[in-house]
Amino acid sequence: MLDSKSPVSSKPVHQPEAVVQPDKEALMKRLNRIEGQVRGVAKMISEDRYCVDILNQVAALQSALDAVAMALLENHTHGCMQGAIKSGNGDEAIDELMRVVRKFAR
Amino acid sequence: MLDSKSPVSSKPVHQPEAVVQPDKEALMKRLNRIEGQVRGVAKMISEDRYCVDILNQVAALQSALDAVAMALLENHTHGCMQGAIKSGNGDEAIDELMRVVRKFAR
Amino acid sequence: MLDSKSPVSSKPVHQPEAVVQPDKEALMKRLNRIEGQVRGVAKMISEDRYCVDILNQVAALQSALDAVAMALLENHTHGCMQGAIKSGNGDEAIDELMRVVRKFAR
Amino acid sequence: MLDSKSPVSSKPVHQPEAVVQPDKEALMKRLNRIEGQVRGVAKMISEDRYCVDILNQVAALQSALDAVAMALLENHTHGCMQGAIKSGNGDEAIDELMRVVRKFAR
Repeated sequence: MLDSKSPVSSKPVHQPEAVVQPDKEALMKRLNRIEGQVRGVAKMISEDRYCVDILNQVAALQSALDAVAMALLENHTHGCMQGAIKSGNGDEAIDELMRVVRKFAR
Repeated sequence: MLDSKSPVSSKPVHQPEAVVQPDKEALMKRLNRIEGQVRGVAKMISEDRYCVDILNQVAALQSALDAVAMALLENHTHGCMQGAIKSGNGDEAIDELMRVVRKFAR
Repeated sequence: MLDSKSPVSSKPVHQPEAVVQPDKEALMKRLNRIEGQVRGVAKMISEDRYCVDILNQVAALQSALDAVAMALLENHTHGCMQGAIKSGNGDEAIDELMRVVRKFAR
Repeated sequence: MLDSKSPVSSKPVHQPEAVVQPDKEALMKRLNRIEGQVRGVAKMISEDRYCVDILNQVAALQSALDAVAMALLENHTHGCMQGAIKSGNGDEAIDELMRVVRKFAR
């Protein structure tokens, strides 16, 4: 999401001044919960809990992180990337997007 | 990894009394670092950092978690699962393993 | 990639008349090789080959398919999606992109 | 799955003489269907079909292959790997399993 200064036009695509996520508060709450989940996994290990129970918690944690990543990607494509394409920096913005998508692709 | 009480024989496969991870201290240190990485991602969002920079940090965080999951799975297969197979509870332990592997499979 | 008729403007985003992949011949060659790899896996099963050797071939096959998917996604984002954004159908095209990205995300 | 000669005991874990998949016919039928799906994707590209429609077919193909991989892995763990553990070659067989699981893990 682009902030009101619309930084994409005169700056390189990959370094806008600021990008306010439209669901900023919700995203930060989700990361707080994820932080708690990480502490929970550490606690399970410290308490010598069964491996499979721990692995199930790690899988739940990964799903929560995947969902955050998809939310950020959605914000980015509708906001920054779309803005860059409209400003004529499309191919650069799309190359950047594809590099990030590859990191999350299987 | 099974602790010295070798709990697998008389208990159901999925609820041993205690499983001390052989690399318990190292795993807990890794989870502490991962907790810091989660806080770092939250901070980037609170500071309105660029989406792609945040996504790259989330990808790094996922890789760190994947590595923890594979370490736990390695401990589990060499320890608990192998113990269960030797104790004659092999098929049950392998079904349990496959359910967990599917969660981490693409 | 849009063909010369630039079908995106008057048609719904998801049904352009024709999309000629810019690397059409290369993509079809890759799919021919992948078809051969699938036959190779079937042959290994029919010859009672060792499971792990078969699984390694399936993993190689998946990597080859992942690469084709990323090539198609790259063509799509630079071509059709960018064209749709420039034609004012950006949000619809991006929603469509995100639905596809989620299928390939972990 | 081990065949009746139970080749694991005297041979190295990774090269049994023959492994008859218990669901051999069903697996080969599934691979025949997958081969048809690959040809279908090639045809879509040759007919200049819409990228997103092709990508959806590639995703379906990947799911079908994932399912075959999980079936082979299930056969392997219940059969060969369990046999190797009972024959005292557990750690070697588990290391081999983990190398394959990592290839299919995200």
